[in-house]
Amino acid sequence: MRDVAIIGVGVTKFGELWDKSFRALGIEAGMKAMEDANLSGSEVDGIFIGNMSAGRFINQQNIASLIVDYSGLASNNVPATRIEAGGASGAVAFRQAVMAVASGLNDVVLVGGAEKMTDLDDVSINSILDSTADAEWEAGMGVTFAGLHAMIAQRMIHDGTATREEIASFAVNSHFHGALNPNAQFRKAITLDTVLKSGPVASPLGMFDCAPITDGAASLVLCPLEDARKHTDSYVKVSAAEQASDSLGLFQRSDITSYGATVKAAEKAYRRAGITAADIDVAEVHDVYTVSGIMALQDLGFFKKGEAGKAVLEGRCQLGGDAVTVNTSGGLKARGHPIGATGVAQIVEVVEQLRGSADKRQVEGAKYGLAQSSGGTGSTVAVSILEAI
Amino acid sequence: MRDVAIIGVGVTKFGELWDKSFRALGIEAGMKAMEDANLSGSEVDGIFIGNMSAGRFINQQNIASLIVDYSGLASNNVPATRIEAGGASGAVAFRQAVMAVASGLNDVVLVGGAEKMTDLDDVSINSILDSTADAEWEAGMGVTFAGLHAMIAQRMIHDGTATREEIASFAVNSHFHGALNPNAQFRKAITLDTVLKSGPVASPLGMFDCAPITDGAASLVLCPLEDARKHTDSYVKVSAAEQASDSLGLFQRSDITSYGATVKAAEKAYRRAGITAADIDVAEVHDVYTVSGIMALQDLGFFKKGEAGKAVLEGRCQLGGDAVTVNTSGGLKARGHPIGATGVAQIVEVVEQLRGSADKRQVEGAKYGLAQSSGGTGSTVAVSILEAI
Repeated sequence: MRDVAIIGVGVTKFGELWDKSFRALGIEAGMKAMEDANLSGSEVDGIFIGNMSAGRFINQQNIASLIVDYSGLASNNVPATRIEAGGASGAVAFRQAVMAVASGLNDVVLVGGAEKMTDLDDVSINSILDSTADAEWEAGMGVTFAGLHAMIAQRMIHDGTATREEIASFAVNSHFHGALNPNAQFRKAITLDTVLKSGPVASPLGMFDCAPITDGAASLVLCPLEDARKHTDSYVKVSAAEQASDSLGLFQRSDITSYGATVKAAEKAYRRAGITAADIDVAEVHDVYTVSGIMALQDLGFFKKGEAGKAVLEGRCQLGGDAVTVNTSGGLKARGHPIGATGVAQIVEVVEQLRGSADKRQVEGAKYGLAQSSGGTGSTVAVSILEAI
Repeated sequence: MRDVAIIGVGVTKFGELWDKSFRALGIEAGMKAMEDANLSGSEVDGIFIGNMSAGRFINQQNIASLIVDYSGLASNNVPATRIEAGGASGAVAFRQAVMAVASGLNDVVLVGGAEKMTDLDDVSINSILDSTADAEWEAGMGVTFAGLHAMIAQRMIHDGTATREEIASFAVNSHFHGALNPNAQFRKAITLDTVLKSGPVASPLGMFDCAPITDGAASLVLCPLEDARKHTDSYVKVSAAEQASDSLGLFQRSDITSYGATVKAAEKAYRRAGITAADIDVAEVHDVYTVSGIMALQDLGFFKKGEAGKAVLEGRCQLGGDAVTVNTSGGLKARGHPIGATGVAQIVEVVEQLRGSADKRQVEGAKYGLAQSSGGTGSTVAVSILEAI
């Protein structure tokens, strides 16, 4: 298998982008990544697209063809493949692209992630979000996606592995960084009090514990590591791209305060990269709710169970803190969460950090970065590790 | 790259299966394929699922996890990836699985395709079907999926490359074979008159020119060719699995009576397999409408432009005919078209033919088989070639 490099990244502004269509967003991100990699379209020989539900959000299936078409690549008949894995759609598309290059099947691959969510009403949007849970035994019985995460938070508090304040502090961490990211949906730092006093969503979680509804797109260009320098001096190495599954329903698990799929994917990723959690300098984790962020930090091995919340509350995961710096992009909470784009946008942020182009969010001397992305309540998890060259 | 074998196949009955859920169908097909391959679940190290729109048909996204879960593989955390490519979803999932085994990333891969379509009303179903066309410039302007295919048929008739009778005869060919397939949705041979006099859908196409709405699932097990005999004596070789894209909208093409993506994918597939169209004994082609079947036979190189219709009308593609035997399964028209399952079911039929287990539908001495699957109006096409061992 060949080593793989990321030679270009592109991301749109995230937010309620009513003046931009799905295809306009996808193409904007893709073109930025191709420019960043100094590529012309004719060099691309494979495309992988992460998208959760364009079929429901904008009544468009078959979107891999759409992207090929609007990227001007239809005349080359470039094969393009759309992946769906709930919230992990973009991350799983990235992994398929890494495998395509590693195996020698493709030489220059474009990865795209996009979602256009804000054209629908709130009831429709929530029905779509709930559809990554078990339709027959969870969503169909009336539990919402927020409700499932609230149960996890309740259990953590009951078990004494996190306090309400510690859980809430994850949003403070994300917003602190989001304020420094020009592409973030929310560019405003907040206090713990704001989270604790925000309107209730599903007890104990309030509005500020939940990632927003967002439009946006992100893109990457991959090639064999040995070819990277032909295209650019500014690239990073993909040290691991792993994926694991778990039961669809939360109720089927013996412990709901840890995602087995994160643990498993992380184990495989650290082994492949030849490092441990202690080597990671920056991490983007899937804080679709504050509680998922806290859980991820433990499942990835950055902290022991019961210790992540305390660390985040103490600011140790913030820029300048002494632990791993988490969600410098602003995370799903503040950068925003256009579902199919999120997993790709996480990788974009890690690349920016490792090549030293993260501006005010830069973690000095970052050598290893990790991204963790989850579909459903941890039923599909992808963990990727990148390395500065 | 390693050679790849198919060591197990499974398919459910196709039809209006109101008593079976999506998950029940998926598991039934998967279990049949695993039994056929003499496998236990713990040997599977990767899963690829083709599905077009469970998000809209049954309000369930994240279905790769669902399949892992209900196959009893969640405890192994097996990575599972869902692919969507409109009507080609199953075929593209098969191709991803072939690549995973060929590259050495996986050793035993389960491929599944499934769709549960009949739980919705006709208007909702048609809106979903139309969503594989261009939502902004085709479906959004009022043209239906049937309407787009009717334009292709009109153009063929106008150009003199097919007559109405020749186009209609494709359904006669499919129904002749479907009558012999115990798993087909429609098991009744029909006459040309039945097609020509069927209720109008989009002129010149009538009800019998259109594939039906269907529930069903199909499954395959893949492993390296060198390992196949450890599992079974009854396997076939995957000689090629190629894919190509074209513009999303039909209106963007210079010629609408040929799919450039079929031509391109077929060229690559014949080259990789080291054969020509003349070597193919059996073919399953994507007759979502009769006219798409006729077009496929030309684009795949079995007949010159303007000659496929005549050959089908003369019965040359039927069992016992002198040309390539086409759609022995009954095709999309008579076997049925549960969208995500179709591309996988085509491969199942070709495997049955090449290992000599196709019963009354058997083409004697079949050595090479081909499957062609299309998403949208030829905007994503997959062409696979299998070889008897």
